[in-house]
Amino acid sequence: MLQNDLLVRAARGETTERPPVWLMRQAGRILPEYRAIRNSLSGFKELVETPELASEVTIQPVDILDVDAAIIFSDILVIPEAMGLPYEMIEKKGPSFPRVVRSAAEIDKLGSSGLELNYVYDAIRLTKKKLDGRVPLIGFAGAPWTIMCYMTEGGGSKTFSWPRRMLYSDPGLAEKLLDKITISTIEYLKNQIKAGADVIQLFDSWAGVLSPEQYGDFGLKYIRRILEEVDEVPVTVFAKGAAGSSKDLMELPCRTIGLDWQMNIHEFRAHDPSKTLQGNLDPCVLYADEDTIIQHTRKMMGEFGKSNYIVNLGHGVYPDTDPVKVKLFVDTVKGS
Amino acid sequence: MLQNDLLVRAARGETTERPPVWLMRQAGRILPEYRAIRNSLSGFKELVETPELASEVTIQPVDILDVDAAIIFSDILVIPEAMGLPYEMIEKKGPSFPRVVRSAAEIDKLGSSGLELNYVYDAIRLTKKKLDGRVPLIGFAGAPWTIMCYMTEGGGSKTFSWPRRMLYSDPGLAEKLLDKITISTIEYLKNQIKAGADVIQLFDSWAGVLSPEQYGDFGLKYIRRILEEVDEVPVTVFAKGAAGSSKDLMELPCRTIGLDWQMNIHEFRAHDPSKTLQGNLDPCVLYADEDTIIQHTRKMMGEFGKSNYIVNLGHGVYPDTDPVKVKLFVDTVKGS
Repeated sequence: MLQNDLLVRAARGETTERPPVWLMRQAGRILPEYRAIRNSLSGFKELVETPELASEVTIQPVDILDVDAAIIFSDILVIPEAMGLPYEMIEKKGPSFPRVVRSAAEIDKLGSSGLELNYVYDAIRLTKKKLDGRVPLIGFAGAPWTIMCYMTEGGGSKTFSWPRRMLYSDPGLAEKLLDKITISTIEYLKNQIKAGADVIQLFDSWAGVLSPEQYGDFGLKYIRRILEEVDEVPVTVFAKGAAGSSKDLMELPCRTIGLDWQMNIHEFRAHDPSKTLQGNLDPCVLYADEDTIIQHTRKMMGEFGKSNYIVNLGHGVYPDTDPVKVKLFVDTVKGS
Repeated sequence: MLQNDLLVRAARGETTERPPVWLMRQAGRILPEYRAIRNSLSGFKELVETPELASEVTIQPVDILDVDAAIIFSDILVIPEAMGLPYEMIEKKGPSFPRVVRSAAEIDKLGSSGLELNYVYDAIRLTKKKLDGRVPLIGFAGAPWTIMCYMTEGGGSKTFSWPRRMLYSDPGLAEKLLDKITISTIEYLKNQIKAGADVIQLFDSWAGVLSPEQYGDFGLKYIRRILEEVDEVPVTVFAKGAAGSSKDLMELPCRTIGLDWQMNIHEFRAHDPSKTLQGNLDPCVLYADEDTIIQHTRKMMGEFGKSNYIVNLGHGVYPDTDPVKVKLFVDTVKGS
């Protein structure tokens, strides 16, 4: 049914003519076409919650950048909100939760099933219809640890000392919260797949604030539980900053592991050459001149090798990146 | 001359009765006695630039927490300021540079010798006099990469994309800036030692935003140059977030390597058991109850072993930590 199924085949470990390419945060501020829509609205959340518009910005990078996959335009924080903890997205500052969760009573009040996230599923259905099989559609969620970070801290942070202190002062409370988030995330991802998501990615943006030992106990444990339940489509796990957990990541029961630019490609490959790897160009390379972009992209592709590989950046594309440079990156992958 | 020379002996690799203990950021917001002085002033920089007051808050943790070393109260950003790039310290936000350095012309304008930093040297002399040999005094500076981060970005950042983009788009320009910072830092540290600093620590707070390969080229290379020049006293290198550079760090020509809580103690020890290690309790442990603090402190000390070891946290103590818990940490080390 898919005309371009490179991503799905690479994620399954099948041979592909060339590695597929897409970019984390490809739908968003880098594109003037996105900003035109975004600026006509009251805020970021209106875009997330309006399926017609979310599907439109989801497809923009497929049309404009010619990437091999679309990723549904949404936010990892729709999960806490659906559990009963609303958030605001403040321009130039990031997410902010008016209420936070730091006690057993507050956790008890959270729901963990029957989540009202139809606007996401509708956006997926609409996007699939509009894409009409051109490329696969990626669904996603935040990993439980990262979601817990925002729910307890109340917003972004350099240290996330609130969730981290909980791991020492009341680990049982942390587990209770992580359990609830995990249950919600499984339901959410299963519904995304039912709506049409061809591949799923879990984003663990704040894996790096934990020691590898703690990340095993409070991060990977819950990711593993999700992976055991969500097996209808290939799943990618991207744990930013978790270079020290390379072995544990490669032992997860999923098809693809995403690498950031601090992670050593050869070290990850050595753990299990049969797993697909995704990544990991430093987003800052795309600020450089054309020759530098081509040179670094080719060097990276040489290190990953031709099979079991999905080309991407090592983090979301930075908002002030020139789309022309992004297109050059995509074209370089396709021409290599 | 020193009544308590545990830190100096541990840093030299000599046998000590027990490992010495101090905390990064021990002089500062955790102490009510510090806040009383700070609140009576116009701002943070007045405290840094007034030797009498800087020496007073430097000694506070020796009196109150009974740590085995004092570290001069100052800021890593006095170096860019002395080079001609003034900064402001904005309450609850952090440092901010009204002007930044992003071109060859801007770098050419910077001075790199004859720095006007007498207020730091005066503070060191005064502190040494007041301490009267009770404990050693640690001097410090930021490592060149971290200083470049602030000078090019203009303040704190999650990504530091300005300095990082320079490494791809104009590596020669980055090297030019790093050279100048390195020359300044060598002069600065030599003067701190002349004024009486017994030990020096280099803080590379933003090592972790680079890949290990880039950190070798743009971070460790300049640290090494400093270490080759500054050899009058033992030097400690603390590169936050550089777990992936463990081997390179352990091969630096310095006596002590500081570890953050993501770094694997056994991995660092295995590279060179003769080097002294410093660290690395997660600062969040100090939010927990007494038993948990004692248990985690003892577990960590067991892993580091008794010799070639300086006890510390894996990062600066967090500002809202209860001083009673800090004292418990210090007492636990002394009683183990």
